[in-house]
Amino acid sequence: MTFIEKLSAAWTANNSLLCVGLDPDVTKFPAQFKQQPDAIYAFCKAIIDATAETACAFKPQIAYFAALRAEDQLEALCAYMRSTYPQIPIVLDAKRGDIGATAEQYAREAYERYGADAVTVNPYMGFDSVAPYLEWKDRGVIILCRTSNPGGSDLQFLKADGKPVYQHVAQLVAEKWNTNGQCGLVVGATFPNELAQVRKIVGDMPLLVPGVGAQGGDVEATVKAGRTASGAGMMINSSRAILYAKELAGEDFAKASRRVAIETRDAINAFR
Amino acid sequence: MTFIEKLSAAWTANNSLLCVGLDPDVTKFPAQFKQQPDAIYAFCKAIIDATAETACAFKPQIAYFAALRAEDQLEALCAYMRSTYPQIPIVLDAKRGDIGATAEQYAREAYERYGADAVTVNPYMGFDSVAPYLEWKDRGVIILCRTSNPGGSDLQFLKADGKPVYQHVAQLVAEKWNTNGQCGLVVGATFPNELAQVRKIVGDMPLLVPGVGAQGGDVEATVKAGRTASGAGMMINSSRAILYAKELAGEDFAKASRRVAIETRDAINAFR
Repeated sequence: MTFIEKLSAAWTANNSLLCVGLDPDVTKFPAQFKQQPDAIYAFCKAIIDATAETACAFKPQIAYFAALRAEDQLEALCAYMRSTYPQIPIVLDAKRGDIGATAEQYAREAYERYGADAVTVNPYMGFDSVAPYLEWKDRGVIILCRTSNPGGSDLQFLKADGKPVYQHVAQLVAEKWNTNGQCGLVVGATFPNELAQVRKIVGDMPLLVPGVGAQGGDVEATVKAGRTASGAGMMINSSRAILYAKELAGEDFAKASRRVAIETRDAINAFR
Repeated sequence: MTFIEKLSAAWTANNSLLCVGLDPDVTKFPAQFKQQPDAIYAFCKAIIDATAETACAFKPQIAYFAALRAEDQLEALCAYMRSTYPQIPIVLDAKRGDIGATAEQYAREAYERYGADAVTVNPYMGFDSVAPYLEWKDRGVIILCRTSNPGGSDLQFLKADGKPVYQHVAQLVAEKWNTNGQCGLVVGATFPNELAQVRKIVGDMPLLVPGVGAQGGDVEATVKAGRTASGAGMMINSSRAILYAKELAGEDFAKASRRVAIETRDAINAFR
């Protein structure tokens, strides 16, 4: 089963476009994890178990593991996801970007070492920096297009031949780079008009859409701008709002995360 | 001492603009390393010892370590470089690029975990993806501008407002992003005219210049295009040509690497 097939099946099976982002910031962990040697693994595992039936994908952010020398915990976590929730794709958020010989190593890191179904990559170095990932034909390659952060406009919004750089990226990927039909794009929820532009350019290509939740993107505008004709086509990511959900009376952290994940999934589904 | 001061001192002390790139591909290692459990560390250490007096910087490429679960060997290697050759800056080649909260984690990975003097980053996500690195005022941030690979032109050569994207990057960094004077740029040796354009835009800013050696860039054209008035301003990188130098009669691999490093340094110095 390819990444795209797995993702499509998860959209249907869980009736969800929600991607749960795993950005484990130990300073925000509940007290019971503070002394635990594998706290990152234990915390993320609890979140995964609490949210698995609400999600179409899990997206671990490798920087949080790398900063703390916790690659072994990321490996264990990916192994846990693959064995316990094999129907939910793992998108490794790494945003790698390097020349061919080096990109090959990064592809091995993502697909072999962590067993990710897909990995995010940066398009700045062009096609030959993306090509090595395409050799893994059953995996996904999700390319930065229009990012949700304020600085995203610095380069992505420069206009060349009458259209902004991010639209060039969308077009290059749709028309040239996506040779095996395994590519997706990252397009932030903070710019629904631009999300709609990208959707027009790329047809049914899956979009990873960060920026709802803590980053403030509007769910209705995002879904209406980015959905495909079948009401899918997106992994709408929420990380911090789910991971560090404020607990209501009687809830522990995992129940609070599950509640916010369900609310987010349902808010998305209301506009599909 | 800041990264820039350390680099300037190394240019002078070693009379060299050569940056030795550490891209340890185990399939190319000499036979004696094949069975060694810390082969990557041992091989790179031998190269470092053989080339230290010829280099103004060392540039380990993290992908080669990450693909093989060898972050511990990269840590050990950086610790070895810092203690044995403290006068030679370590540029961690990671090409990271992500939003603020995540960039902070990557900065900690590079500067705290590995103790790198500088790290390469990708500009596609704009200023707020670079700003967290600038908080480390004694370290360097080396931003991709014009890369040496063929695909580099896909985006970097799009023209906006009459000039290519890579020149926008050079200008943004020179005029806005380099708030503490700690930035540098990556500009490939395969395009000497464009290197000259960048030099004009950025004044004396240090440039990391890959693409000589195995990638075929012309040394004379590169040096003439990129040098500053004082005949420095560049870290001209060679990785594979030095690491996997063909051994002459009577040489072992380390001596061959040293010889090629000396030849490259001298070829560069001939045109400074």
